[in-house]
Amino acid sequence: MDQIENGWFSERSQLWPGQAMSLQVQKVLYHEKSEYQDILILNTKSHGRTLVLDGIIQCTEYDEFSYQEAITFFPLCAHSCPMDVLIVGGGDGGVAREVAKHPLVKHITQVEIDGSVIEASKKYLPFMAVGFDSPKLDLHVCDGFEFMQNHTNSYDVIITDSSDPIGPAVNLFTESYFALLKRALKPNGIICSQAGTIWNNLRHVRSTTLSCRKHFANVRYAYASVPTYPTGQIGFIIATDNVSNDLQDPKQLFDVESLDLKYYNADVHKSAFVLPTFAKRAFI
Amino acid sequence: MDQIENGWFSERSQLWPGQAMSLQVQKVLYHEKSEYQDILILNTKSHGRTLVLDGIIQCTEYDEFSYQEAITFFPLCAHSCPMDVLIVGGGDGGVAREVAKHPLVKHITQVEIDGSVIEASKKYLPFMAVGFDSPKLDLHVCDGFEFMQNHTNSYDVIITDSSDPIGPAVNLFTESYFALLKRALKPNGIICSQAGTIWNNLRHVRSTTLSCRKHFANVRYAYASVPTYPTGQIGFIIATDNVSNDLQDPKQLFDVESLDLKYYNADVHKSAFVLPTFAKRAFI
Repeated sequence: MDQIENGWFSERSQLWPGQAMSLQVQKVLYHEKSEYQDILILNTKSHGRTLVLDGIIQCTEYDEFSYQEAITFFPLCAHSCPMDVLIVGGGDGGVAREVAKHPLVKHITQVEIDGSVIEASKKYLPFMAVGFDSPKLDLHVCDGFEFMQNHTNSYDVIITDSSDPIGPAVNLFTESYFALLKRALKPNGIICSQAGTIWNNLRHVRSTTLSCRKHFANVRYAYASVPTYPTGQIGFIIATDNVSNDLQDPKQLFDVESLDLKYYNADVHKSAFVLPTFAKRAFI
Repeated sequence: MDQIENGWFSERSQLWPGQAMSLQVQKVLYHEKSEYQDILILNTKSHGRTLVLDGIIQCTEYDEFSYQEAITFFPLCAHSCPMDVLIVGGGDGGVAREVAKHPLVKHITQVEIDGSVIEASKKYLPFMAVGFDSPKLDLHVCDGFEFMQNHTNSYDVIITDSSDPIGPAVNLFTESYFALLKRALKPNGIICSQAGTIWNNLRHVRSTTLSCRKHFANVRYAYASVPTYPTGQIGFIIATDNVSNDLQDPKQLFDVESLDLKYYNADVHKSAFVLPTFAKRAFI
């Protein structure tokens, strides 16, 4: 709340010192310090309803679709038959909303550590929390690490929709987390984790990629445009042990109209893996 | 200057109400109200030297390369033999720097209306103004409209490196400007103009595209990631009268290392034309 001054919310963070994105606030809809983090929900003048966790913008009504569609359809469409999907995090419901759209998905399990985010989203962010209404979904409020320790060989795709690597999400970027993901996957399963941007912290993206490579034989990085994130984009680590699966190649070509997608299409999937020269060099 | 408060420069503009990018200022290096616009050059904490015209960030030392390489190499590499190139605007010198790298370019003409921007860049932004040193370059300080009226059938590629459609650049987005560009081009010539982003003002991008289509048979839109621009990207109209030229297909595959490029490569070129579903629909 101390980030709101003269009616503007400014996203200053130790993760990107010297720069800040600001949004003009119409109304503070909700504010709570939960057991895990500071939860702030704003109505903004230009970007609609906005979820802020520990001072960092997680999603706005204006552009959340590109993030949710990318983190969901990049791994789901890289898999030939993603029937069982696990979501770790994603307390706003947006990823569940997208996973439920995929025609081959039969069962969605979601593990979110902070029940307060789920409740606040249900009340103030219904355009995302609608995901919790899916009859395909089993929602568990508990720690993702602990949950996966008890579930091996269970999922075709695991999506980790975390906040940035400070606060409750810090463990979701470590090598031991990738080891857990691997155990929880079925053979030929695919993981997709939020992984920062090449523009803001290339070193962090690289170290996360290297941690992932210790447990997966086929590791790629892809990105999506999300204007309200610092640098205007967000990246994902997408990985599998199946070396013959070209993750850049979408396995199903959807009728986009029928799935109500605004960002994702097959060409977007392929181009999401294309990196500028400076980033390509860093991944070699 | 009134956009600097407590050591932070905030980019508030009527072009994107309700949102603002802020950069922490280490030092104001230069400030002048020229005949045409307000020129401000800052040294920022995170993004190095930064050029601000009429309150809007034009380029920062940190990410100017992606903009300059994209607006240059998208059209140059879409042309099979771009020997004569005209740059309209580009007073910082960054585009001239990039055009001069292209091995097939023999002669560069540049027309910038505001000589004060050129002089300030030479003094404070040498990493871009180095472009003015190219022996291939003829630099004219005059109005691009007037210049082109006197030069027909002269250029293989015309790059319009303008500021946003307020201030001195307002004429560079109109239908009559595209008519002038067409007259100034040689047969099979290609134009590339800064054209705003699909995220911020899709309607403006669409109307600029429609204006361009009145004069060119083959009109495309492509974009590049530029973190410090609003929405984190910038788009370009790329057009030609040659309907058999697939502009998405780069004609030369460069040895990127030898040209000292950090953003552009052949795959980046192809993927720059790929649009999210909501934008694709708007262009149909």
